[in-house]
Amino acid sequence: MGRYVFGVDIGGTTVKLGLFGEEGCLLDKWEIPTIKENQGASILPDVAASIREKMEEKGIGEPDVAGIGVGAPGAVDDEGTLVGGAVNIGWKAFNIPKALGAYINVQVKAANDANAAAYGEMWQGGGKGSNHMVAVTLGTGVGGGIVVNGELLMGAAGAGGEIGHIHLADEETESCGCGNKGCLEQYASATGIARLAKRRLAQDEKESILRKKAISAKSVFDAVKAGDEVAIEIAEQFGDYLGKGLAAVAAVVNPEVFVIGGGVSKAGEILLSYVEPAFRKYAFHQCRGAKFVLAKLGNDAGIYGAAGLIISTLCKGKQFNDQ
Amino acid sequence: MGRYVFGVDIGGTTVKLGLFGEEGCLLDKWEIPTIKENQGASILPDVAASIREKMEEKGIGEPDVAGIGVGAPGAVDDEGTLVGGAVNIGWKAFNIPKALGAYINVQVKAANDANAAAYGEMWQGGGKGSNHMVAVTLGTGVGGGIVVNGELLMGAAGAGGEIGHIHLADEETESCGCGNKGCLEQYASATGIARLAKRRLAQDEKESILRKKAISAKSVFDAVKAGDEVAIEIAEQFGDYLGKGLAAVAAVVNPEVFVIGGGVSKAGEILLSYVEPAFRKYAFHQCRGAKFVLAKLGNDAGIYGAAGLIISTLCKGKQFNDQ
Repeated sequence: MGRYVFGVDIGGTTVKLGLFGEEGCLLDKWEIPTIKENQGASILPDVAASIREKMEEKGIGEPDVAGIGVGAPGAVDDEGTLVGGAVNIGWKAFNIPKALGAYINVQVKAANDANAAAYGEMWQGGGKGSNHMVAVTLGTGVGGGIVVNGELLMGAAGAGGEIGHIHLADEETESCGCGNKGCLEQYASATGIARLAKRRLAQDEKESILRKKAISAKSVFDAVKAGDEVAIEIAEQFGDYLGKGLAAVAAVVNPEVFVIGGGVSKAGEILLSYVEPAFRKYAFHQCRGAKFVLAKLGNDAGIYGAAGLIISTLCKGKQFNDQ
Repeated sequence: MGRYVFGVDIGGTTVKLGLFGEEGCLLDKWEIPTIKENQGASILPDVAASIREKMEEKGIGEPDVAGIGVGAPGAVDDEGTLVGGAVNIGWKAFNIPKALGAYINVQVKAANDANAAAYGEMWQGGGKGSNHMVAVTLGTGVGGGIVVNGELLMGAAGAGGEIGHIHLADEETESCGCGNKGCLEQYASATGIARLAKRRLAQDEKESILRKKAISAKSVFDAVKAGDEVAIEIAEQFGDYLGKGLAAVAAVVNPEVFVIGGGVSKAGEILLSYVEPAFRKYAFHQCRGAKFVLAKLGNDAGIYGAAGLIISTLCKGKQFNDQ
C-alpha cells in the first residue's frame, strides 16, 4: 500500500490533477491541456506522463502510489468502462483503468466526472459527514451525483444521478439537448434560467433591470439581489422547477443533504432561498427534512472525488466517513 | 453460524412467516394473526413464540438459526429502527432487532416491508440476477423498493423508494393520503385507477362496459381486455402517469429492471403494455433500456426478502448475486 494518491479530472479544455496524501490532504494541484485531436488518443498518455513528472519532482516511487482515480465526462460503469464514450473529448467506449494502467502500473479507478465531484463534496466538501447525499451541479446543464451509504450510485449503465433529465413539464415545446421535452435541465441550468428570463421578459412590458442587460443566470440573480421584481419572478419559477425535481429525487433516495454547486451556485445563499421552500412544498413528509448547502470545493471537487475513489478502498470494510 | 433463517412479514391483518435454508430455499411457511390491541404490544412476542414452536416442531436448536429478518410496515433505518412508528399496527418508534432479540437470542435484521419485498423479488423473483432493480408495488398505494449494487437503498430516514409520492400533476385538486397534491400514487394505485375511471366516465356519455359495473382497477383492466374504448383511454392515462414517474426514478438510480407487483399487477402483461411505451417516451436515453417484468413471488416476496436480509450477511464480502 502506497502513501500517495492522484486524482484526475478530465474536462473538455483542461485536465485537472491533484496529488493527495492517503489521509486525504491535497498536497499539490496542477493542470494540463486536454488534447482532443485523434479522438483524444493522447489524453491518457499525457496524464500518465504528467503524473510521472510529478513523481520524479517529489521523489515518489511507484510503490509509494496507492492509486490513481479518474473522473471522465461520460457514463462510467462499476468496472470503470466509459460505456457510451465521451463525445466532447472524442473518446469512444473503453475501459479507463486498463487503458491508463498500460502506461503506469498502479491501481486505477474511474467514475463519471459529475459523480466524482459529488463524491468529493461528500468526502471533504459541503456534504462532509453525510453518508446519504445528492450533489446537484447547476452549470451549462444540470448534473447530479448521488451517494448512498457512503458510496457513489453509478446505476446499471453508469447513468445514475442524471437528474437533469427528470421530466417536469408536459407543455414544453422546445427540446432539451437529450432530445426529450420538459427536462429539469431546461429550467434550472444556466441556459435554462436565461431561457426562463427571456420568456418572462417577452410576456409584457414590465420594467426591469434585465431589459438593459445581457441575459444570463448571473444577471438574473444580480437583479434579484437588487430587488428587481421581474427577476424575482424568474427566480421563483427556477426555484419551483428545481424544488419539484429535487423532491422527486428525495422520494427515490431520501438524502440527508443536497449540496448545490456549479456556476449558477455562485449566486450564493439567495439561490437556496428560492429552491428550499419549493422543495418542502413538493417533498414527501419523511424526506422533507433534507438540508440544502452550497458546494465548497469549487473546481477541485472532481480531483478530490477521483482521489477519494482510491482512498475509500484503503480502509477495507470500514465506512468511508468513519475514518 | 446456523443452518436456518426465518423471514417475517408483519402486515395489518396477519404476520407471514417463512422458514428458509441458508441457501435460500423456502422450507415452510405459515401465518399468525396480527394482534393490534395495546399498540401492537404482543406482535413481536407472538412472532417469537411462533418461531420457537416451529423450531420445536422441526427439531431446530437456537445455534442452528442464523437469524431472523423482519419486514415492518413503516420506515426503517439502517440500524433496524422503525423511525416514525407504524400507524396501521399501532407501533411507535423503536428498534426492532433489539426488541425481538429480547425474546429470542439470534441475529435480527429489519427493513421496511415494501423494501423487503423488493429485495425478495431481486433475490428469488422477477428481478433475479439483477443488482440494479426497482420493485414497484401497485396496491392500495404505490410503494417502491430500490436495490443498488445488490443492496437495499434505505435512505437517510428509511424513506428511500417512496416513489408513490413523486409529484406529477400541478393541476390536481384532491389531496393524496400524504397531504400533498398530485402524487404518482393518486393515479397509479388501485384507488388511483378507480379515480381516473370515475373522472373519465363523468366527462361524457360515451358507452362503456364500466358504466354497468363497480369501478375498480380490476374492472378497468377486465374492460381493457374486452376492448372497451373508454377503459383503454383510462389505461393510457394510468400508463402515462406511471411511465412518467418511473422515468424520473430511472434518471435517479438507472435500474436494469423494473419489477411490477401488487394487486393491480394481477392484470398481467397487458398492464406493462401501457406503462412501457410511456416510460420510454419520458426516460433519458441512457436509462431507456430498462426492462419491465411482473413480480413473481406474490405474497411471499416479503418473507423471502426478510430472510434475504440475513442470508446476505452470511456470505461476507461477496456480492449477494454471485453466490
